[in-house]
Amino acid sequence: RYGLIEEENQIGAATGLAYTTAGGDILSIEVTHYPGKGNLKLTGKLGGVMQESAQAAFSYVRSRAEQLNIDSDFYEKYDIHIHVPAGATPKDGPSAGITIATALVSSLTGRAIRREVGMTGEITLRGRVLPIGGLKEKALSAHRAGLRTIILPEDNEKDIENIPESVREGLEFIPVKHLDEVLEIALVKEEE
Amino acid sequence: RYGLIEEENQIGAATGLAYTTAGGDILSIEVTHYPGKGNLKLTGKLGGVMQESAQAAFSYVRSRAEQLNIDSDFYEKYDIHIHVPAGATPKDGPSAGITIATALVSSLTGRAIRREVGMTGEITLRGRVLPIGGLKEKALSAHRAGLRTIILPEDNEKDIENIPESVREGLEFIPVKHLDEVLEIALVKEEE
Amino acid sequence: RYGLIEEENQIGAATGLAYTTAGGDILSIEVTHYPGKGNLKLTGKLGGVMQESAQAAFSYVRSRAEQLNIDSDFYEKYDIHIHVPAGATPKDGPSAGITIATALVSSLTGRAIRREVGMTGEITLRGRVLPIGGLKEKALSAHRAGLRTIILPEDNEKDIENIPESVREGLEFIPVKHLDEVLEIALVKEEE
Amino acid sequence: RYGLIEEENQIGAATGLAYTTAGGDILSIEVTHYPGKGNLKLTGKLGGVMQESAQAAFSYVRSRAEQLNIDSDFYEKYDIHIHVPAGATPKDGPSAGITIATALVSSLTGRAIRREVGMTGEITLRGRVLPIGGLKEKALSAHRAGLRTIILPEDNEKDIENIPESVREGLEFIPVKHLDEVLEIALVKEEE
Amino acid sequence: RYGLIEEENQIGAATGLAYTTAGGDILSIEVTHYPGKGNLKLTGKLGGVMQESAQAAFSYVRSRAEQLNIDSDFYEKYDIHIHVPAGATPKDGPSAGITIATALVSSLTGRAIRREVGMTGEITLRGRVLPIGGLKEKALSAHRAGLRTIILPEDNEKDIENIPESVREGLEFIPVKHLDEVLEIALVKEEE
Amino acid sequence: RYGLIEEENQIGAATGLAYTTAGGDILSIEVTHYPGKGNLKLTGKLGGVMQESAQAAFSYVRSRAEQLNIDSDFYEKYDIHIHVPAGATPKDGPSAGITIATALVSSLTGRAIRREVGMTGEITLRGRVLPIGGLKEKALSAHRAGLRTIILPEDNEKDIENIPESVREGLEFIPVKHLDEVLEIALVKEEE
Ligand SMILES: [Ca+2]
Ligand SMILES: [Ca+2]
Ligand SMILES: [Ca+2]
Ligand SMILES: [Ca+2]
Ligand SMILES: [Ca+2]
Ligand SMILES: [Ca+2]
Ligand SMILES: [Ca+2]
Ligand SMILES: [Ca+2]
Ligand SMILES: [Ca+2]
Ligand SMILES: [Ca+2]
Ligand SMILES: [Ca+2]
Ligand SMILES: [Ca+2]
Repeated sequence: RYGLIEEENQIGAATGLAYTTAGGDILSIEVTHYPGKGNLKLTGKLGGVMQESAQAAFSYVRSRAEQLNIDSDFYEKYDIHIHVPAGATPKDGPSAGITIATALVSSLTGRAIRREVGMTGEITLRGRVLPIGGLKEKALSAHRAGLRTIILPEDNEKDIENIPESVREGLEFIPVKHLDEVLEIALVKEEE
Repeated sequence: RYGLIEEENQIGAATGLAYTTAGGDILSIEVTHYPGKGNLKLTGKLGGVMQESAQAAFSYVRSRAEQLNIDSDFYEKYDIHIHVPAGATPKDGPSAGITIATALVSSLTGRAIRREVGMTGEITLRGRVLPIGGLKEKALSAHRAGLRTIILPEDNEKDIENIPESVREGLEFIPVKHLDEVLEIALVKEEE
Repeated sequence: RYGLIEEENQIGAATGLAYTTAGGDILSIEVTHYPGKGNLKLTGKLGGVMQESAQAAFSYVRSRAEQLNIDSDFYEKYDIHIHVPAGATPKDGPSAGITIATALVSSLTGRAIRREVGMTGEITLRGRVLPIGGLKEKALSAHRAGLRTIILPEDNEKDIENIPESVREGLEFIPVKHLDEVLEIALVKEEE
Repeated sequence: RYGLIEEENQIGAATGLAYTTAGGDILSIEVTHYPGKGNLKLTGKLGGVMQESAQAAFSYVRSRAEQLNIDSDFYEKYDIHIHVPAGATPKDGPSAGITIATALVSSLTGRAIRREVGMTGEITLRGRVLPIGGLKEKALSAHRAGLRTIILPEDNEKDIENIPESVREGLEFIPVKHLDEVLEIALVKEEE
Repeated sequence: RYGLIEEENQIGAATGLAYTTAGGDILSIEVTHYPGKGNLKLTGKLGGVMQESAQAAFSYVRSRAEQLNIDSDFYEKYDIHIHVPAGATPKDGPSAGITIATALVSSLTGRAIRREVGMTGEITLRGRVLPIGGLKEKALSAHRAGLRTIILPEDNEKDIENIPESVREGLEFIPVKHLDEVLEIALVKEEE
Repeated sequence: RYGLIEEENQIGAATGLAYTTAGGDILSIEVTHYPGKGNLKLTGKLGGVMQESAQAAFSYVRSRAEQLNIDSDFYEKYDIHIHVPAGATPKDGPSAGITIATALVSSLTGRAIRREVGMTGEITLRGRVLPIGGLKEKALSAHRAGLRTIILPEDNEKDIENIPESVREGLEFIPVKHLDEVLEIALVKEEE
């Protein structure tokens, strides 16, 4: 059902946490690629900041292709599409950065993403994870959707104490400083 | 006659169901392709959300070309045009996603679409079918136009009971979760 | 003289019928092509709907190139320009669709268009002719300009009776469902 | 001196006649070309209608390249620049069409334009010359600038009588229907 | 120091004279080129008229490449950047035309520009120098900055008498009709 | 922690000083490059002046590639991305010019940038460093963040005396006229 967590681990789909004036929500970020000419397409009624955030995530992945086990000329052999349903809902902000990066790596490596993991954090070109807003509301929506693990920026660790204990008990919070840690947690191990 | 169902099964034309402030309507979504350079053209006074919806449908088809029996380098040998008459009527929203995808697959495979089938549902990059609004009004317009089968998102199954019984009796409702099911129902079997 | 019918049958120039708040008018739609790189140029202060209408006409012609006796790689060897004088008058709407398609076929095949024929009708990607508005005003302007034959959409046949008899007598009205019929009527036979 | 006629016959510079709310004025339209990739550049604070007018003139020249003694692949070996000084003055309207076409032919053939000739008239893709407004004001400015010959659309011949006799006496008015006539009058004969 | 004249003759940097509602100012116009693909970049918060003016200057240089001793295929081997500091100050108008052309020629030939020369004048595609406004204010700012020579359009020669005598005495005014004269004056002789 | 100085010397990340109506702030400017087609991407909600400033910095680096020990065809083998976190904060102005140029040189040469150095100054195409505003506020923020060295334009040397002595004592101020001096100070020596 839409709005709940995935039924299986997915390749190319990561779960982000959004925060709007209407409260928190979970966001499924989808990435696909196919033979093409190196174009990047961004859809889902994304505002300018979120589009730039996706471009930063894309550049991070391109600059680290070799270490991530991605064929280094993928950028000229494939087109890549990043889409965020539902298509009629406006979305913006930088906090989906690490979620987009994770979905990109998953699509390009074929490694699945753990279905019970949600995440939030701005990404920089160096893979740094910067702080975000609305952690409490995001945690509430993660809890409602059935997630078990929340990856968050280390700079937001201090905000965990403001989350109601009933919510905190059902969720594991993992503060991170760099995208490498996010990928380590969110991607299914190849031997699994 | 315009506004009624097709007189024959068509290649590259699928029937969608639209919902506006003026009520429900049926929508013929046309796709054609011809030798070209890989361009995608979208016309018919489509709003931004509907254009992005068409791009998501196009990416789904490209990422599944092999399974759909589509020549995998069609994207660089053809130009593709998606048009939604009537050209002066503004149209928007994500609910034509599965209709666009179906018309695309029909045009590229040469398989006809059953003339008595109408459909509504948002599509994601993974081919998931997301819920839509206005099912009652859409069903009324389908009934008026002479359709017999309505494909709808599984998440909208609960809304069927709000449709007047006189309308429900003449229509078969088929809830789906994935585009594969849509294609199975809407495309004419090759041996037919 | 400008505003009257052509003095000779023309290659690449078809006569459309327009309807504005100021009444009906005839419209000369010009098409030319020359060695180029496959670009399509649209000029004459055309609104968005009319530009999309020209793109639909162009796609119809490209998808039927072989049947229309047009060299199938014309799209990469020529540039094509569609222009609608007078250049300072804003124009919009989908009803010039079949006129644009006819002028395109004339330019690309070198077959002339009968000077006494005027036409109005929206075109779809499949060559269907959809209904238009303002038939009465269009017929009056056709009569004033000296046209003898009006091609119109079958769905508008019912509107003929609203045209004053004095105008109706001097004009032949030919309702059509598909562009093939338009071309059969408007293009001069090759043996002529 | 700026605002007066050229001191010598020029290659690639034709004199047009403009009409604004501030009265008539003469307009020097400059064209140059140089080795390039087939780009067309339009400058001089030109409005949309005047830019489209230049594109129509350019298409006319391209479609008649052979008859005009222009190398038929000039469009891919040169860049072409059309500029209308003074650069800070906004300009618009279709009536510079034949002036632009004349300057283009002059630049591409190397044939000079007679310095005492001014002209006004919309051009179509077929080289037709359509009527313009403000002939009286244009004639006054032509007279002030020292021009001797005015090329005008045949449909404006009736407006000559409204020009004051003192102005009419010093000017020769030549009504035309087609650009071929304009070129015959304005370009210096090769044997001259 | 910024706002004063250059400390040495410069390659690719010419001094223009600007006139705004705040009075006159000097403007350093910088041009650089480097291996590339033929792109022209314009920066420095330039308005539309000034950008078009730069394009006219660029076309003049391209059409006279041979006479100016510039390699005729420079346009496809280099990218060219024209920048006008200070980057936060809006600038517009056509009067920097000859300054931009001079800086372009300097950059592409490697010939330095005399540090004590300032200039103002619109340029046309044929290299004509058209009149400008604000000569008095421009002369005052040239004087303050330490310039010694002012190149100005011949049509502005009559305005020199309005400049205060104390300013006129320290400056040499050279009226010109064509860019060739500007280059003769502003560029350092090769044997120097 | 975000808002404090880097924990280690970084390749491709330089520290700028910003000045807004809300006071001073430090700004981490990130540059990365990877195999590509010569595209330059600019993100981080940058205003028009800051984007042009980045283009000027990029042109300076391209025109001096050889002297800077950068492979001269890097511009066609790599894509380059300049990003300024935090992505949701609007940024503008020319004063980040030398910081962007320094981060570019660092990324393209692989030489690290000293973590204790902050800088501010507009850059021109010739590498000149032009004056900036808000030096006092910028110095305060540099002090709070833990920086030790401030590179500033020579034209701003006179503004140092307005900075409170408690702040001045902990910082070394180095006035510069040209980017070469900036790189000499900010880049780690190769033998280090
Ligand atoms: Ca956000
Ligand atoms: Ca866990
Ligand atoms: Ca909808
Ligand atoms: Ca059935
Ligand atoms: Ca219409
Ligand atoms: Ca007849
Ligand atoms: Ca006009
Ligand atoms: Ca004469
Ligand atoms: Ca100016
Ligand atoms: Ca002197
Ligand atoms: Ca600034
Ligand atoms: Ca130090």
